[in-house]
Amino acid sequence: MIPKAAKEKLTAIAGIDQYDDSNAVRLVYSYDATPNFQSLPDAVISPRNTGEVSEIVKVCSEYSIPIVPRGSGTNLCAGTCPTEGGLVILFKHMNRILDLDEENLAITVQPGLVTLDLIREAEAKGLFYPPDPSSMKISTIGGNINENSGGLRGLKYGVTRDYVMGLEVVLANGDVIRTGGKLAKDVAGYDFTRLFTGSEGTLGIITEATLKLIPMPETKKTMLALYQDLEAAAKTVSKIIANKIIPATLEFLDQPTLEVVEEFAQIGLPTDVKAVLLIEQDGPREVVERDMAKMENICREESAVSVQVAKTASEAEALTAARRAALSALARLKPTTILEDATVPRSEIANMVRSINEIASKYDLKICTFGHAGDGNLHPTCPTDARNKEEMERVENAFAEIFAKAIELGGTITGEHGVGVMKAPYLELKLGSEGIAAMQAVKAALDPKNIMNPGKIFAKDSRKRVVVSK
Amino acid sequence: MIPKAAKEKLTAIAGIDQYDDSNAVRLVYSYDATPNFQSLPDAVISPRNTGEVSEIVKVCSEYSIPIVPRGSGTNLCAGTCPTEGGLVILFKHMNRILDLDEENLAITVQPGLVTLDLIREAEAKGLFYPPDPSSMKISTIGGNINENSGGLRGLKYGVTRDYVMGLEVVLANGDVIRTGGKLAKDVAGYDFTRLFTGSEGTLGIITEATLKLIPMPETKKTMLALYQDLEAAAKTVSKIIANKIIPATLEFLDQPTLEVVEEFAQIGLPTDVKAVLLIEQDGPREVVERDMAKMENICREESAVSVQVAKTASEAEALTAARRAALSALARLKPTTILEDATVPRSEIANMVRSINEIASKYDLKICTFGHAGDGNLHPTCPTDARNKEEMERVENAFAEIFAKAIELGGTITGEHGVGVMKAPYLELKLGSEGIAAMQAVKAALDPKNIMNPGKIFAKDSRKRVVVSK
Repeated sequence: MIPKAAKEKLTAIAGIDQYDDSNAVRLVYSYDATPNFQSLPDAVISPRNTGEVSEIVKVCSEYSIPIVPRGSGTNLCAGTCPTEGGLVILFKHMNRILDLDEENLAITVQPGLVTLDLIREAEAKGLFYPPDPSSMKISTIGGNINENSGGLRGLKYGVTRDYVMGLEVVLANGDVIRTGGKLAKDVAGYDFTRLFTGSEGTLGIITEATLKLIPMPETKKTMLALYQDLEAAAKTVSKIIANKIIPATLEFLDQPTLEVVEEFAQIGLPTDVKAVLLIEQDGPREVVERDMAKMENICREESAVSVQVAKTASEAEALTAARRAALSALARLKPTTILEDATVPRSEIANMVRSINEIASKYDLKICTFGHAGDGNLHPTCPTDARNKEEMERVENAFAEIFAKAIELGGTITGEHGVGVMKAPYLELKLGSEGIAAMQAVKAALDPKNIMNPGKIFAKDSRKRVVVSK
Repeated sequence: MIPKAAKEKLTAIAGIDQYDDSNAVRLVYSYDATPNFQSLPDAVISPRNTGEVSEIVKVCSEYSIPIVPRGSGTNLCAGTCPTEGGLVILFKHMNRILDLDEENLAITVQPGLVTLDLIREAEAKGLFYPPDPSSMKISTIGGNINENSGGLRGLKYGVTRDYVMGLEVVLANGDVIRTGGKLAKDVAGYDFTRLFTGSEGTLGIITEATLKLIPMPETKKTMLALYQDLEAAAKTVSKIIANKIIPATLEFLDQPTLEVVEEFAQIGLPTDVKAVLLIEQDGPREVVERDMAKMENICREESAVSVQVAKTASEAEALTAARRAALSALARLKPTTILEDATVPRSEIANMVRSINEIASKYDLKICTFGHAGDGNLHPTCPTDARNKEEMERVENAFAEIFAKAIELGGTITGEHGVGVMKAPYLELKLGSEGIAAMQAVKAALDPKNIMNPGKIFAKDSRKRVVVSK
């Protein structure tokens, strides 16, 4: 509950029309893209500028009201689920490009800007913003920064973090700070730009970001390699890298995923093979030609049953669009879709895929696996039904084993989706209690009243679970 | 003073032969490469492994003994000067390559490893570790990570931070934590890998690091462009980037620097021009050829009086070696050399160089400027004499104006050298009091007794100064 006095202050700051505590609106913002997490906020507020955000935070601090910053809510870790109620801060009005600086290859934007809008604006100037989470058509930059989103181009180009040059952040006490700038080099103090990137709204609220752009690659080619053997596909991945080629995209889809995606996208994907690699290279024409030829050879050496290079840009686009649709396609199978992002060193992909399949069969579950093979970031996905308690129990246990296996192989519990509520019980697997204690110390130092997206990253208890029903 | 009981514990941990509190050794470790900062440690200890480091830190915590981790002491911000006495931890025994993983393009090393040894080991496998601080022949990886060192290849390849994939860190309470891993993607909790990178030893002690390698560029070319006009050189820099070319190196030297470097290196550098750009491109042969031709044209369009492409690898090597020798060459001029690294957005380089020259003439000082033009990271350097109090006063005032100008142009007080003691009084210019307060909160959270390299980054008072004599 937001006290009456606090509500009066909040409406005075943002205007009565930008504050909504109706049941309908509270319901709309009670969940995000993560299955089976739901919790009502007390109200939703839509500020217009940093000054308003700062004033709102001061009121929340005064009354100890939890704050959940939210873009489009496409995250998959329940990072924007208001598990402790409080105030959702919506960035729908703060969605502008403030500056596109071609000389310094930098773009300055507000957090509510949709990722694809940024990418298109950059491309119109011959510039490139590589991070491309699958949700980029609707996700916002603020959300991408808070979750340190990855995407299909991560192998060659890195993730969101690698493109954040500077931030404006409202701290838990209402202070507005600026980190970094249009600077290729800056070592003035701790790297707060990257501390806030990926902090899931738990340390402060990002109100502006300066992002790095790079020159648009001259050309791009796309290729599909089909395998009757999972290991051979995994070996191809390692061999490409060992041959000193870093492709822009190196995606893996297993047979169950292929079937579902083809049914959804209807673009003639083969469904009678065990695995597919979707490979893209971009860059100067000569280099792309040479790398594609070398990779085609490697695929064949590793027993690919077929290697097809897309003949046209639209054929290539259809292939990547199909891959981007994997989650949507899988989500049609069953009422509940549990999608994970266990990540391992690239050399361990074959091991990891094999283990996922063994675990799926041990627990009698269908688990489809696809993902960013080039960077070891896999998405084992289980179509299930949250109402089937017995099956959910098995799902929970299977994913707990998958996470443990990823850690055993030198990996991590989440490569690009974030911890949020969903992964919090598993974080200790990766960080140990000492690592978590150190992170909690930083959290407490910057947010002593624990009002910044409370309940995220750090688990309240050590109970392992995949989903929480409320 | 280290209490007798603490000394007994420390010598029991590392062995009596690895602990030295003789006056001679204390004197040796009382300074680093930063002019005019000197302060005696109480003792120097050389652990052999992480376990010993952890035990040493626990003793220091118990007795509140300041700890100064130290590699080769080549930093230029007095970051390893033991300003509050205490224990210098020397990494001379922890200097091994633990693992070079070609499949995951990662190398795992101990902090005491010399940077160039790492680079050579990677090159022997056809791999590339791009960060190349000018001190790389003697600097250590631990030092590079603590200072987030840059270098000549920063424009295209980024800085040390961009290559740190994972760390092992001993915290102030002796806990050993691991961050990241051989993972291209990892969002499990806050980005401690990057929080510790560049934290100058004030948050914990780095005892192991996993660094990213990339495929070695196929070829490299080097070019020298001469200008009779500073602005034309600066405009060339902007125009190259605006033409979507990101060269591997884009270095600037002004006339005073050229004269000194030529006198030192004797390789036939022209000394009758106002500025020189040293330009390198690496990559696939066709791309390098094409980029070099385009850049040569741009140089000529911007009135370069001469553009010469190095004909042989050894000619190219001589040119970059000369640039790397700039500090050593300048240091021969006068007893004291104050070298700074004010950094501005690339588009402001001409403004910044002009301002530096105006400020030098206002204070009647010789200031030579060279640096990484491509990333706006300039090194205005003043040969002076610390014994001349009146001149030092002018030097101090001149650099204070240079820092203020850099901030005014959207820049920072330090691009790659770190804050240490030297820049601490200026940090507020960049971060504001709110930003500093937030960083101090993080420092206090992770190091409540303030034993980790105390006195660095955060100024004790707001007195501006370039040097402190003790």
